[in-house]
Amino acid sequence: MVVVMGPEATEADIAAVVSIVETAGGEAFVSRGVARTIVGLVGDVDQFGSLNLRGMPGVRDVIRISVPYKLVSRENHPERSVVRVGGVPIGPDTMTLIAGPCAVETPEQTLQAAQMAQAAGATLLRGGAFKPRTSPYAFQGLGEQGLRILADVRAETGMPIVTEVVDAHDVELVASYADMLQIGTRNAQNFALLQAAGEAGRPVLLKRGMSGTIEEWLMAAEYIAQRGNLDIVLCERGIRTFEKATRNTLDISAVPVAQRLSHLPVIVDPSHSGGRRDLVLPLTRAAIAVGADGVIVDVHPHPETALCDGPQALVDGDVRELARLVRELPPVFGRTLTEPADALTTAG
Amino acid sequence: MVVVMGPEATEADIAAVVSIVETAGGEAFVSRGVARTIVGLVGDVDQFGSLNLRGMPGVRDVIRISVPYKLVSRENHPERSVVRVGGVPIGPDTMTLIAGPCAVETPEQTLQAAQMAQAAGATLLRGGAFKPRTSPYAFQGLGEQGLRILADVRAETGMPIVTEVVDAHDVELVASYADMLQIGTRNAQNFALLQAAGEAGRPVLLKRGMSGTIEEWLMAAEYIAQRGNLDIVLCERGIRTFEKATRNTLDISAVPVAQRLSHLPVIVDPSHSGGRRDLVLPLTRAAIAVGADGVIVDVHPHPETALCDGPQALVDGDVRELARLVRELPPVFGRTLTEPADALTTAG
Amino acid sequence: MVVVMGPEATEADIAAVVSIVETAGGEAFVSRGVARTIVGLVGDVDQFGSLNLRGMPGVRDVIRISVPYKLVSRENHPERSVVRVGGVPIGPDTMTLIAGPCAVETPEQTLQAAQMAQAAGATLLRGGAFKPRTSPYAFQGLGEQGLRILADVRAETGMPIVTEVVDAHDVELVASYADMLQIGTRNAQNFALLQAAGEAGRPVLLKRGMSGTIEEWLMAAEYIAQRGNLDIVLCERGIRTFEKATRNTLDISAVPVAQRLSHLPVIVDPSHSGGRRDLVLPLTRAAIAVGADGVIVDVHPHPETALCDGPQALVDGDVRELARLVRELPPVFGRTLTEPADALTTAG
Amino acid sequence: MVVVMGPEATEADIAAVVSIVETAGGEAFVSRGVARTIVGLVGDVDQFGSLNLRGMPGVRDVIRISVPYKLVSRENHPERSVVRVGGVPIGPDTMTLIAGPCAVETPEQTLQAAQMAQAAGATLLRGGAFKPRTSPYAFQGLGEQGLRILADVRAETGMPIVTEVVDAHDVELVASYADMLQIGTRNAQNFALLQAAGEAGRPVLLKRGMSGTIEEWLMAAEYIAQRGNLDIVLCERGIRTFEKATRNTLDISAVPVAQRLSHLPVIVDPSHSGGRRDLVLPLTRAAIAVGADGVIVDVHPHPETALCDGPQALVDGDVRELARLVRELPPVFGRTLTEPADALTTAG
Repeated sequence: MVVVMGPEATEADIAAVVSIVETAGGEAFVSRGVARTIVGLVGDVDQFGSLNLRGMPGVRDVIRISVPYKLVSRENHPERSVVRVGGVPIGPDTMTLIAGPCAVETPEQTLQAAQMAQAAGATLLRGGAFKPRTSPYAFQGLGEQGLRILADVRAETGMPIVTEVVDAHDVELVASYADMLQIGTRNAQNFALLQAAGEAGRPVLLKRGMSGTIEEWLMAAEYIAQRGNLDIVLCERGIRTFEKATRNTLDISAVPVAQRLSHLPVIVDPSHSGGRRDLVLPLTRAAIAVGADGVIVDVHPHPETALCDGPQALVDGDVRELARLVRELPPVFGRTLTEPADALTTAG
Repeated sequence: MVVVMGPEATEADIAAVVSIVETAGGEAFVSRGVARTIVGLVGDVDQFGSLNLRGMPGVRDVIRISVPYKLVSRENHPERSVVRVGGVPIGPDTMTLIAGPCAVETPEQTLQAAQMAQAAGATLLRGGAFKPRTSPYAFQGLGEQGLRILADVRAETGMPIVTEVVDAHDVELVASYADMLQIGTRNAQNFALLQAAGEAGRPVLLKRGMSGTIEEWLMAAEYIAQRGNLDIVLCERGIRTFEKATRNTLDISAVPVAQRLSHLPVIVDPSHSGGRRDLVLPLTRAAIAVGADGVIVDVHPHPETALCDGPQALVDGDVRELARLVRELPPVFGRTLTEPADALTTAG
Repeated sequence: MVVVMGPEATEADIAAVVSIVETAGGEAFVSRGVARTIVGLVGDVDQFGSLNLRGMPGVRDVIRISVPYKLVSRENHPERSVVRVGGVPIGPDTMTLIAGPCAVETPEQTLQAAQMAQAAGATLLRGGAFKPRTSPYAFQGLGEQGLRILADVRAETGMPIVTEVVDAHDVELVASYADMLQIGTRNAQNFALLQAAGEAGRPVLLKRGMSGTIEEWLMAAEYIAQRGNLDIVLCERGIRTFEKATRNTLDISAVPVAQRLSHLPVIVDPSHSGGRRDLVLPLTRAAIAVGADGVIVDVHPHPETALCDGPQALVDGDVRELARLVRELPPVFGRTLTEPADALTTAG
Repeated sequence: MVVVMGPEATEADIAAVVSIVETAGGEAFVSRGVARTIVGLVGDVDQFGSLNLRGMPGVRDVIRISVPYKLVSRENHPERSVVRVGGVPIGPDTMTLIAGPCAVETPEQTLQAAQMAQAAGATLLRGGAFKPRTSPYAFQGLGEQGLRILADVRAETGMPIVTEVVDAHDVELVASYADMLQIGTRNAQNFALLQAAGEAGRPVLLKRGMSGTIEEWLMAAEYIAQRGNLDIVLCERGIRTFEKATRNTLDISAVPVAQRLSHLPVIVDPSHSGGRRDLVLPLTRAAIAVGADGVIVDVHPHPETALCDGPQALVDGDVRELARLVRELPPVFGRTLTEPADALTTAG
């Protein structure tokens, strides 16, 4: 059961709802989105029915939700959400390109990759400072030094940054640099991390687990939402199957399925899905055509020396084609490529 | 090793190549495509090298192929092939829509479905007379009676027909009615059926096995090609994975991967991939955008009473949107929707 | 709905049941097992209820079955079945070892492999004369010549033979030599072949499809049963998953699951599951321990020169260990290794 | 490259090795097992070759390892390891039964479950105080209160306890109560947690990721080992496949495969593999027969009211059969059921 607060609701109104639910033996989880605040109730639903919550000050609606992911479900939230990252929207009317290096290696490489990203039409910069690697002997990222490089490149280019956090206790540190926190496929059920991200005050990019069902993915989002953060963007990045011609199998159907079940934006990562440079542009076209709200791609100035996932990074020659693609294709489907954050700011 | 015959080669030239190979203890498989004839050699490659095949009359080239699917590989055939079905092309410059009922049930239902298909822009009619069903108690198709209905609807509408064959010994019968033979996902490694289809003198639509790798799919095509038939169209129709929100998982990446490995056209079946009506149009958009050479969809005038796969069939309301889509989207990618066979014939 | 005939039922009694069902617009499928005859009814169950089938001569019982595999279900057949192959039982009280070469290559190799099989305790000889191969360029088996070799080796060793059939129209030929027909994993949904095997008058070894669910496997068995043959043995041989350390993933749980759902015997193929010689003995131990009714393994006198699946064939050194294992382990679980057919015959 | 220190090596000897490697620009990871200390080197292997490490005091051997999991590989450690948990061995000569409730709910339930476990022959008590749950609305465990209950039950029964830790920053807390730390399937690539467990001074039970390959599982173990802890037990608990009759698919082959690749003990969890009570005993038999070094099962005094995974918990009636099984079956394979810790202590 979910209590939807009106825009006029005060903190005292919210606190009163929480209090009455707890007094009745239930639990109440307050989630604050851009547009409105929602209180998710756990406990004896029939008893909540007798509390007359609907009559309390600031309450707009009280809704029973049939699915287990109550706060991110589209059942009580038919309009699809827009999540803003440093001013850049990700949502149903736009197509947002996020690009950058898989891993932050040096200031020069990161700046060059950011310039490639901008040339391609990207408005958000991706780049990993903390890298989860299958092997403990592989490059694990530069850590805070990488975050500082990202912040410098943001200052230089004006691009808000999206970067991964791999441990609950790094969330505060990463959030102090990042405009958006990324949670990777290996942490799709790291519930401590999801909860910490829910409390960090930053939008979250939540990748699907490589063997996670769509329902499990939405439940992971619910962990974040339950801690008060509805600014979540879902990212399909390929699932693990028997096929070995590609690194993972992009589940393109997951985009419309997740968009029907949840109000959250859904984007696609064609780089990690295929794991092959030659598939990135075809899969980007497919992602835009199927209705994705954005795309996140790896670019690298010198992929042959990349410390991480070089074989899938786009190079200079691909960037022009990507730029053409992300400008020309979205309008066919009633969307426009998002404008840079500074253009947006200046315009505003 | 593959011997490519020139257009001027006579039957006697081909027979001479076969003879010298067999005398040397090898096997020779002759494949006749629209544009040229190829002889695939099996046996001791080094010994073949000493036969001076290149100097024989009618021989244009002798090529070593590194992959196990020699005749369908793009290694010795860099230009992508066009396969013609009753005059309708399927290939790299066009986008061909194939539509019709999953199963032929009655003359009226089949004609109405064909008219829906035409209204949507389809130039080929699909419809099953022999249905492979998981349960022996499910409707198995009308058999030859269904083939007669398809032939009548072809006469009425001018649409060439694509229909499934499920047993090697029905191939001759089905080929006497059909313009294109379909081999379904459950028969993707029914080698007797593949070989029979290779000798039937009809183009073949070869669906990927639901758990078949891309390599196994190309090897299945090689079974057909080896019997002399290179008019093969590959069809991606979803693979079996752990995800249960969709009936199968459309492996959209398989389209560009297969197109890179093989010269054969590759189309997509969005109806059987998702198994849900609401996914057919989004997945059709993705298929066209990723570069598929065609799309095959289920339509039904009354899906609620369909004897087979009703939940995934498009209805009247969807047809207008599909028609718009298949006309407007392919030109964005440099393709045009194929014209009807009679228009082609008249034009020709 | 299923009509169970009593042992005293005559052919005329059975025909009368079929006739009354067909007159009522239904279909009736007669299945003759060793112990009793069953008639499966398809159509309007409520109408069948009004026919008073239970009162007809020879009818022992009329049962509604809730699952779609009516004839092979354990719902109406709680005791587990025994299938006899040339006198050798496969069923709940015994452990039957089937062994032999993957493919019949020469008379010498087949005889030596059969002697290895006997030394290991096998009472049935496996060996393929028709081989379904992923590549059309791979060895496809010796065909009828291979069947003749198997028959000669049977005459020499007294071992009944189990051999694969890959095309519906070879069933009669193969059945004229074989004691048991094997249907392989690639043909698990080749319904024409399943139906032909159902009419062949021989017991059938039905391998699970490499991506088939347990329910689909039982439905495949139902296709055989519906044509009148209940002498079916199910064989788990590994499923296709993401793990590549083994050729397939042996689904050991499928043995008790299938035994609970169906009355048919269930055996395990540890050779094709793992695809590695070093796993055959551990997986054989697991199969016996989990309760399999038998095990089928590849042996080869010279696996390094085998034309098919050499890396998984047991060699001489393994045979002694296998012999010890299949004698000592079954009694721990209340079973005994089956005796040779000639011992059974002599004893009888 | 791995430096194996002799038993006589001092801390100064180890520090000297680390120092010379770091001076040469490499990294050195010290792992202390029960029997010996190993130093894993990362960096330029050729340069290490010139350091004459073999001649340094305390060094027994210097080995190049070809696989990426150097410390847990069997290449440099042919004898299989024994890991001791509160005095109870898990290793190649014994079969260790670990049992207890999925989740600690109350002191009474935990004590009763521990008594059931002992009656079944278990020498280690499992029980979850921190539960990773797919839904944020599901019971998440009692936390530290649950750990205190486990400690009380240990005092009462003498059973060392195995309990899960789900967040790197709880490791110290959990290690202060537990005899063995469990890392669950959802955290199989939570590298921060793996590293923290590597420093906790407790043996670790590492479950395989539900979609993790065997190689990824060994790499996860390497993360633990690299931080100095070689007391790791691997646990196969079922992988995610297309089959839905069971919760997961027990990959029984993974036991011998992992035992060949790594010197670490490997056990099986038949409860979470199948997710069904009726499969626990058959899968336990298969696990023992295939050569597992132990089995971990769920038991619950009242599974119908269990807060977690009731449908798979064994009940009183099953316990007698389990007790018989774990005593009678291991000797067939040259193993004995481990004795209780207090018996070991008293004996010692």
